[in-house]
Amino acid sequence: MTGIVSTDGEKRLVLASGRAHTELAADVAKHLGIELLPTTAYEFANGEIYTRFGESVRGADAFVLQAHASPINQWIMEQLLMVDALKRASAKTITVVAPFFGYARQDKKHRGREPISARLMADLFKTAGADRIMSVDLHSAQIQGFFDGPVDHLWAMPILTEYVRTRVDLSQVAVVSPDAGRIRVAEQWAAKLGGAPLAFVHKTRDIRRPNQAVANRVVGDVEGRSVVITDDLIDTAGTISGAVRVVLEAGAKDVIVAATHGVLSDPAIERLQQCGAREVIVTDTLPIPEERRFPQLTVLSIAPLIARAIREVFDDGSVTSLFDGNA
Amino acid sequence: MTGIVSTDGEKRLVLASGRAHTELAADVAKHLGIELLPTTAYEFANGEIYTRFGESVRGADAFVLQAHASPINQWIMEQLLMVDALKRASAKTITVVAPFFGYARQDKKHRGREPISARLMADLFKTAGADRIMSVDLHSAQIQGFFDGPVDHLWAMPILTEYVRTRVDLSQVAVVSPDAGRIRVAEQWAAKLGGAPLAFVHKTRDIRRPNQAVANRVVGDVEGRSVVITDDLIDTAGTISGAVRVVLEAGAKDVIVAATHGVLSDPAIERLQQCGAREVIVTDTLPIPEERRFPQLTVLSIAPLIARAIREVFDDGSVTSLFDGNA
Amino acid sequence: MTGIVSTDGEKRLVLASGRAHTELAADVAKHLGIELLPTTAYEFANGEIYTRFGESVRGADAFVLQAHASPINQWIMEQLLMVDALKRASAKTITVVAPFFGYARQDKKHRGREPISARLMADLFKTAGADRIMSVDLHSAQIQGFFDGPVDHLWAMPILTEYVRTRVDLSQVAVVSPDAGRIRVAEQWAAKLGGAPLAFVHKTRDIRRPNQAVANRVVGDVEGRSVVITDDLIDTAGTISGAVRVVLEAGAKDVIVAATHGVLSDPAIERLQQCGAREVIVTDTLPIPEERRFPQLTVLSIAPLIARAIREVFDDGSVTSLFDGNA
Amino acid sequence: MTGIVSTDGEKRLVLASGRAHTELAADVAKHLGIELLPTTAYEFANGEIYTRFGESVRGADAFVLQAHASPINQWIMEQLLMVDALKRASAKTITVVAPFFGYARQDKKHRGREPISARLMADLFKTAGADRIMSVDLHSAQIQGFFDGPVDHLWAMPILTEYVRTRVDLSQVAVVSPDAGRIRVAEQWAAKLGGAPLAFVHKTRDIRRPNQAVANRVVGDVEGRSVVITDDLIDTAGTISGAVRVVLEAGAKDVIVAATHGVLSDPAIERLQQCGAREVIVTDTLPIPEERRFPQLTVLSIAPLIARAIREVFDDGSVTSLFDGNA
Amino acid sequence: MTGIVSTDGEKRLVLASGRAHTELAADVAKHLGIELLPTTAYEFANGEIYTRFGESVRGADAFVLQAHASPINQWIMEQLLMVDALKRASAKTITVVAPFFGYARQDKKHRGREPISARLMADLFKTAGADRIMSVDLHSAQIQGFFDGPVDHLWAMPILTEYVRTRVDLSQVAVVSPDAGRIRVAEQWAAKLGGAPLAFVHKTRDIRRPNQAVANRVVGDVEGRSVVITDDLIDTAGTISGAVRVVLEAGAKDVIVAATHGVLSDPAIERLQQCGAREVIVTDTLPIPEERRFPQLTVLSIAPLIARAIREVFDDGSVTSLFDGNA
Amino acid sequence: MTGIVSTDGEKRLVLASGRAHTELAADVAKHLGIELLPTTAYEFANGEIYTRFGESVRGADAFVLQAHASPINQWIMEQLLMVDALKRASAKTITVVAPFFGYARQDKKHRGREPISARLMADLFKTAGADRIMSVDLHSAQIQGFFDGPVDHLWAMPILTEYVRTRVDLSQVAVVSPDAGRIRVAEQWAAKLGGAPLAFVHKTRDIRRPNQAVANRVVGDVEGRSVVITDDLIDTAGTISGAVRVVLEAGAKDVIVAATHGVLSDPAIERLQQCGAREVIVTDTLPIPEERRFPQLTVLSIAPLIARAIREVFDDGSVTSLFDGNA
Repeated sequence: MTGIVSTDGEKRLVLASGRAHTELAADVAKHLGIELLPTTAYEFANGEIYTRFGESVRGADAFVLQAHASPINQWIMEQLLMVDALKRASAKTITVVAPFFGYARQDKKHRGREPISARLMADLFKTAGADRIMSVDLHSAQIQGFFDGPVDHLWAMPILTEYVRTRVDLSQVAVVSPDAGRIRVAEQWAAKLGGAPLAFVHKTRDIRRPNQAVANRVVGDVEGRSVVITDDLIDTAGTISGAVRVVLEAGAKDVIVAATHGVLSDPAIERLQQCGAREVIVTDTLPIPEERRFPQLTVLSIAPLIARAIREVFDDGSVTSLFDGNA
Repeated sequence: MTGIVSTDGEKRLVLASGRAHTELAADVAKHLGIELLPTTAYEFANGEIYTRFGESVRGADAFVLQAHASPINQWIMEQLLMVDALKRASAKTITVVAPFFGYARQDKKHRGREPISARLMADLFKTAGADRIMSVDLHSAQIQGFFDGPVDHLWAMPILTEYVRTRVDLSQVAVVSPDAGRIRVAEQWAAKLGGAPLAFVHKTRDIRRPNQAVANRVVGDVEGRSVVITDDLIDTAGTISGAVRVVLEAGAKDVIVAATHGVLSDPAIERLQQCGAREVIVTDTLPIPEERRFPQLTVLSIAPLIARAIREVFDDGSVTSLFDGNA
Repeated sequence: MTGIVSTDGEKRLVLASGRAHTELAADVAKHLGIELLPTTAYEFANGEIYTRFGESVRGADAFVLQAHASPINQWIMEQLLMVDALKRASAKTITVVAPFFGYARQDKKHRGREPISARLMADLFKTAGADRIMSVDLHSAQIQGFFDGPVDHLWAMPILTEYVRTRVDLSQVAVVSPDAGRIRVAEQWAAKLGGAPLAFVHKTRDIRRPNQAVANRVVGDVEGRSVVITDDLIDTAGTISGAVRVVLEAGAKDVIVAATHGVLSDPAIERLQQCGAREVIVTDTLPIPEERRFPQLTVLSIAPLIARAIREVFDDGSVTSLFDGNA
Repeated sequence: MTGIVSTDGEKRLVLASGRAHTELAADVAKHLGIELLPTTAYEFANGEIYTRFGESVRGADAFVLQAHASPINQWIMEQLLMVDALKRASAKTITVVAPFFGYARQDKKHRGREPISARLMADLFKTAGADRIMSVDLHSAQIQGFFDGPVDHLWAMPILTEYVRTRVDLSQVAVVSPDAGRIRVAEQWAAKLGGAPLAFVHKTRDIRRPNQAVANRVVGDVEGRSVVITDDLIDTAGTISGAVRVVLEAGAKDVIVAATHGVLSDPAIERLQQCGAREVIVTDTLPIPEERRFPQLTVLSIAPLIARAIREVFDDGSVTSLFDGNA
Repeated sequence: MTGIVSTDGEKRLVLASGRAHTELAADVAKHLGIELLPTTAYEFANGEIYTRFGESVRGADAFVLQAHASPINQWIMEQLLMVDALKRASAKTITVVAPFFGYARQDKKHRGREPISARLMADLFKTAGADRIMSVDLHSAQIQGFFDGPVDHLWAMPILTEYVRTRVDLSQVAVVSPDAGRIRVAEQWAAKLGGAPLAFVHKTRDIRRPNQAVANRVVGDVEGRSVVITDDLIDTAGTISGAVRVVLEAGAKDVIVAATHGVLSDPAIERLQQCGAREVIVTDTLPIPEERRFPQLTVLSIAPLIARAIREVFDDGSVTSLFDGNA
Repeated sequence: MTGIVSTDGEKRLVLASGRAHTELAADVAKHLGIELLPTTAYEFANGEIYTRFGESVRGADAFVLQAHASPINQWIMEQLLMVDALKRASAKTITVVAPFFGYARQDKKHRGREPISARLMADLFKTAGADRIMSVDLHSAQIQGFFDGPVDHLWAMPILTEYVRTRVDLSQVAVVSPDAGRIRVAEQWAAKLGGAPLAFVHKTRDIRRPNQAVANRVVGDVEGRSVVITDDLIDTAGTISGAVRVVLEAGAKDVIVAATHGVLSDPAIERLQQCGAREVIVTDTLPIPEERRFPQLTVLSIAPLIARAIREVFDDGSVTSLFDGNA
C-alpha cells in the first residue's frame, strides 16, 4: 500500500484562556497539570481585539475558556476570535468553555420582534468554528438544544450542596425558591439535602382582597428553620434579597443563599450585605475581585469540576458519570 | 434596459393539508375563503407514503397543515414529504403549520445520551425546505429558538378564557396549576380572569413526616370556589385527573379543566369522565373523533385563529397584533 | 510544548440497534464479537419515541442499524433520533446502517409536484448527524449521490449466487428479469452463473395485433431450463409471481426466485406460495417473522457481510475489496 | 406605519448567455421578445475567464444559459462565474439553464473511489448561487435529486416525435432501443407513435454457443419496417451506428435515428454518415457548427421549448403543463 | 386555480438604527423621507443588550445601520442581535449597513495562529441573518469576498474630492500617500484632482548609510505645493501626523488631510491639532461628538450617499451607477 | 464497556496528483519517501474528465496536488473531481495542494457585476470536500480568508532569496518593485538581502508637464547597482520586461528578475529573453516544459518546501515554524 504510515496516534490537549477570568483558567490548568497555551491578546486603540497563540495547536484538542463577565460583549467577541484563530491554525477539535453562558436568560421571545439571543450566541460560536460547548448550570436546559453539536452541561449543585451540608443542621433545614419559575431547581436541592421541606416566595394577590397590590409571601412552612434560598445566578440580587427578607419575616431562624453564578451586578453587593442572610454562597464561574467580596460571601472553586470534565472529554470518558447519571 | 418587465406583482396563497386532521384544514380553508390545494396521498404496501399536488404551486406562499396526531411519526413524515414536494415544485415560501408540535416535550436532555427530539424535528423541517413554522402553544417557549427562522407562535388562551368566562362566576373562580412546573401559564390565566386567585397542586412530603411517601396537596385556597385547572395539553390525563380529585377534596365547589391540546391518549377519556370535572375544554388542534367525545367534553375551534394568522403572514401584517403585543 | 499529550490513540467501535430487526443486529454483533450498545427505546402514550443509550459513546465510531421495515416511518424516525442522540453524546463518527434503504423507489419525480423522497431521507440522516450511510443493494445506484458523504454500498449478489449455484444445474440454467427496467441486474447474474442465457418478461403488444391489450411474454429462450428470476426486492410479489407464471407457460423446467430484500407486503406470501416457484430466496435485510415463512422460502443471512463491512470501515480497510473491485 | 411603501411590485426577467452556444441564446431571447443581457467575457492570457454584465441585474429573475459543449470544463466554469457575478450583483433569483447537463453520465459510482460527478456539478452550481436548474432530457431522472432545489426538467420528445410523425408511415414503424438500459425511453416513443411495436439491440451470447464472443442482435421484429432508433444523446455514435447496422441486417426497410442531444464527438460524424441511416435527428441543445453538418442530419430547434419554460417560471405558471402532466 | 390571489405587490422599506450613531441614522432617514423604525435598546445590569422593534417588519426590506464605533464589540453585538430579531420577525430581506466595517484591518493572517477577524465578522452577520452588507470604503476591497452574498461597496471619495476642489488651487496641488501600501488610493485622488502629481511618504534606509535607523522621507516632489494627504481612515493619527510633518519639511506650502473614516482614537485629536495641517477632512461614518471637534476639522455628511444607495437597493436600481461604473 | 477497542491508532498519508504537473508531484513524493497514489484519469470523447484511485484511501490524510496551469479550467475541474472521489471514498481529511492558486488575481470586484472568482474557487473546493488548502505565495494574503477552514500559506521567498544571495554582490544590490502595488513584497526582499536599498517603477506624469502622457520611471536610486526585480508571478511579462528596461535605462549595472510563479503565458518567453535581464528566476509551482526554457531562465524546485509542509501537517507539527514565525 502506498503512502506513509505512522503509528504513534498521539493526542494533545491544549487549554487557552481569554482575559476575562485568568485566575479560573490558571486553576483549571493546575488541576489538569498543564500550562495554559501562551496567548497574546490586547485591544487596538479603537477597541478591536487582537489575539494570537504563541505555540502550534495543529491537531490538538483545544479548549478555550472565557468567563462571560462584564464587559460581556467584549469577552464574548474575544472568545469568538480565539475560536476562529484555533480553526485556522488547524486545531483538531475546539471546545468553547463558557462556565456562565452569556445571554442565557434571553432564551425565548417574550414578545414579538425580539431576538432569541441565547440561540444567536450558540450559532455565533458554531460559525466561528466551535465543535462543542461546555457550560455550568445553563439558565434553562433547553439551551443545550440551541447548539448544533454536543453540549457538556456541568452541574455545580453537588459542590454547593456538599458545602451547605456542613453549614446547616439538616434536620432543621428548608429549601426555598425565590420565584415560582425556579421551583424545579429547589426541588432537586431539597432531595439532595435529605428530603428537606420545600417552599417558595410567591408574588400573589390576597384571595380575599383581589384589588390590593401584589405582595410577596412565602408558600410553605419555614418557621424556625434554617432556610436555603437557591437560584442559578445572582445578578442585581433584587429578587433574592427580597426573598431573604420575606423568609425572615415568616419566622425563619436564619437564611443561607446559594447560587452557581455570582454575576453580582450593582447594587448586588450592597443588597446582599444588608438583606439579613447569614451566608451567601456562589462558585467562581465568574470573577469576583477581592474588593467586591464581603464578610458573608463564600466563593467555592469550580475549577476541579471543569478540569475533570475536560479530562473526560479528552480521554473519551463520560461526563455523565461525573453526576451519577444526571447530566 | 434589457429584459422583460411585468408589473402585476401578483401573490398567491395556497393551503395544503396532510391526512391527519382534514376537518381542521377544511375549516381553516373556509375561514380563508379558499379551496384546499388538491392533494393525493396514500401509503404503498410497505407503508412508504406517496404524495403529490394536483395543481401548480410555483411562486405561491404555501402553508402546509398537519396535526401531529397518532400515528405521529407517519404524519410528521408525510408533512416532511409535502414540504419537499413544495420546495421542488418552486413554491416561493413554505410555512409548516403544526398546531400541536410533535416531540415538543423532549426539548432538553434530562440525562446523558438522549436526543433533543424537538430540536431535531425543527431541523428536519428546515432541511426539507420549510421557511417558517406556525404553531399553537408550544410546550416550552424556547422551542421557538430551535428553528433557524421565523416561528409564528399562536396563543389559544384568549379562545379558552373567553369561553370559560361564560361558564363560571368570575367572582367565585380560582385558577389551579396541576404541577409546580406549569405555574406561569396559570398566572396568565388568573390575570385574564380578572385577577382570580391562584393555587397549584404540589407533590410534596409532609414537613413533619419527611419519611412518608409523596402526596399531592393543593397549595393555595380553593374552598368553595369554581376551579379552573389549566395546562398546555392533556395526554393520558393522569396528572390532570389527579389534580381534579385533590382540588375537589380540598373543598372546591366544582372544577373545569382547560387545555389547548387534546392529545387524549388512552386512558385519558376514561379518566376524564370519572375524575369529577364538571367540564373539560380543549381546542381541536388535534383531531378528536366523534366516538371519543364524551358529555363533559367541549371542543373549541382553533381554525379562526390559524386562518387569521395565515392571513396576516400572507399580507405582511402582524401576528403579534393578534395577541395585543403578547406573541 | 504546553498541553497534555496522551499516546494510546485508542479507537472504539460501538453498534447500536433500533427495534425494527433486533435479530439481525444481534447477528451482526456476534460476527463482530461484541455486545450491542445497551439502549432504551419505547413509545410514549401518543406515539412519540423515546430513546437513550446506557453507556458512554464519547469518541466512539458508532454504527446504528435499523431495518426500514413496517411501520417504516416509525422506524426511520427512531433511527433519526438515535443518530441525534449519538451526535449530542459526542460519538466521533456515526454510520447509519440501513440494509434496506426506505423510500428508495421514490428516487425521481415521475410527474411534477412530487417529492424526491429518497433524497429527502438522505438529507434527514445528514441533518440528524450521520457521517456515512451503509446499505445493501440500493434500488438505483444513483441514490449514492443523494447523500453528501461516503456511502458504503454492499452487494448481496455474491451471497445469493453462491447459494443458487448449489441449487441448480448450471448447464441448464437461464436468468430472467421480471421487467425491462431491471435487466442490468439480471445481466450481472447471468455472468456470475457462468454465462447463463438471459431473458426477460416484457409487457408488449403483439406486433400484428396492435389494438389488442397488453400481455406479458418472455423474450429469450427458457424452454426446458431451470430459470432464476432476479430482482432487488419483492414487495407485494405481483410482478414476480406473474413472471413465474409466464416463464413456466413458456416451457421452463422449474423456477427459482431470488431477491435481496424480502419486503413481502400483503399479499406477497400468498402469491409466492401459489405462483409455482420451486424456491424463493431472499436475505434477512428485513425481518421475516417465523409465522410469515413458508416451505418454499429460503432466507440467507446478511449479517456476515454487514459485519465484515463494518469491520473494514472501522479498521480503515477497503469495502471495495469485499466485492473484487465491483463496489 | 413607518418606512417607505412602494406599490409597483415590478418584476424583471433577464437572460444572460455564456459563450458556448450564443445562437441558441439568441433564439431563446427572440422567442421571449427580449435582448440578451449585455455581457463581457474573455480569457486572460493564462486561460482564466473574466466575465462582467453591462447592465444592472438588481432584483431581477436571472436566467443564465450555457451549453455544456466542448471544451466542457471551460464552459461550466464560465457559467459558475456568471452565477457568482449575478449573486453578488443582487439578482433576486438565478436559474441555471443547461440544456445538456454536463457530466450527467457520471451519476453513480460504478466502482469504488470514483467521484459522482453529476452530483458534484449540481453542488457547484448551488454553491455559486443557483436557485434553480433548468435542463432538457437528463441522462437519468435521478439527477433531479442531486440538486437541493427545484429542477425544471424539460422533455424534447414531443418536438422529436412530432417531427418523426411527418417522416414515417406510422402503420409501418417500429421503435428500437440501441441498448438494454435505455428501453424505457423507447417505450415512451412507441406509445407516442401510436402504439408502435418495440424492439431493442441486445449484446448477448448465443444460448447454444455460450463460449462464443458477444454479438449484438435485435430482440423483437423489425423486418420490413421503418425503424426509429432513439436515445437521449449521441456522443461518438459507436453504439448507435452499430445498432443501425444490426437493425438493417435484421431486415428493416430503413432507419431513422433520433436523440435529444447531439454531442457528436469524433468520430460521430463519420460513423453516422456511413452507418446507413436514412436520417439522423437531434435538437440544438448543443452547438453544431455548419461545417459539421451532413446531408442526413436534421437539427430541430429547442429554443421555443426553453423560451416557453422560462416564461412559465417567470410568470409563476406551470412547467408541468407544457408536457400534459408528464414533467 | 385554488388559493387566494392578491395583486397589490406592495413593498416596504424600514430603516432601523443601533445606538452607536443615531445622528447619522436620523440623517439618512431624513434623506429617505421616512421615520426610523421605533426600537427599544438598553443593557441589562450585567451588560447583556436587549433590543426590540416597536412595529411589525413582516415582509419588509429592512436596513439596520450601526456605526462600528467604540465600544466596538458592544455595537457589533447589538447589530447582530437586531439582525436576529429582524430575521425572526419575518423581514423579507435584511441589509447590514456598517458605514465603517469593524475589524477590517485584520483581513489576513500576518503570522500563524491569528484569526482573520474581518472574515469572522462577515460570517457572524451572515449567521445572524444578513442578506447583504452595505459599507463605505472598506480597508481592502477583498473584504467584499468575505461575505457570502452581495456587498454594496460605497465610495466616499467623490464627496471628499468635490469638497477639496473648493479648498485648493488645483494647479498647485499634489497628492501624497502617507504609506507605501496606500498608494493606489492616492493615485485615484490624483486622477480626480485633474491629474495632480503624486508622491508618498516612505519608510526607508538611506541608500548610502544602510546601517542607519529607518527614517521617513517624501518620494516625489511636493515643494511649494498644496498637499493633500489621503487615507481610508485616521485612527490614532500617528502615521498621518508624521506624514504631515515630513511633507512640510519637504517644502510643501500647506497640507490638507482627507480620509473617509474618522476613528480618531486617542491621541488622534491632539496629534492632528499639533501636526501643522491646515485642515483635516473626514466624513461622519463614525460619530464625532462636539467636544472632540477642533478648529481645523471638517466633517462631511455621508448620509446623502447612504440614503441614495439604500433607495437604489430598495428600488432595484443600480448602486454601481452612483459611481459612474466604478463600484 | 461494550464495543470493540483497537489501539493501533495508525495514521496514513496519501498523496494524489492531477495530470497538470506530474513532475512536481513525483518530486514531492520522492521527498516524502512515498509512492504517489495510483490514479486513473482521462477525458471522455466530449471532454468530461474521468478519475479513479487505484487503492483504498479510507481513513487516510489525503493530499491532492494540482498545478493550476493551462488549460486552467480543466485542471481545476479535475482537482474538484478528485476531491469528490476522496470524500466519497472515506478519506479522513482532504488537503487541496494548489501551489499556484488559480483565479487569485480576481480577488475583488473592480467594478459592479463582476464575480469574485478567487472566493468562488475557495467555495468550490470546500463544497467538493476539501478540509484545508495549501498554497504558495497567494496573490493577496486576504485570499486566506476566502476559505472557511485552515489555509497553509507557504512562502517561496526564502528559496528565492537564498539562491539570489549566491548570484549578486549583496553590497551592490538594490531591490525594485515593478509596480506601486507590489512594494510590500519588495520591502521583505530588501530586508532579507541585508537591508538592500529599495526602489520601484512608477507609472506617473511628470510633475512639470501634467498634460503629457504617462511614463514609467524608477523611484529610488539604482545607478550602478545589481538590481533584483521581484513579483509574485510572471504572466505575459509585459510589466516585468518594461521594468527591466526602465531600470537599465536608469543606470543599473544588471538586472535579475525573481518571482514565485512562472505562469509564462505568451509572449512571456520572447519578452523575457529580449528585455535585457541577466537572469530570470522562478520556482516550478507551475510546469515549464523543456521547450519553453531559455538560457537566462533558472527554475528552482518548490518540492522540498511542499514536502516539508505536508509532513508538518501530517505530523501535527508547525507549518509556521518553517518560516521562522512569518507564515
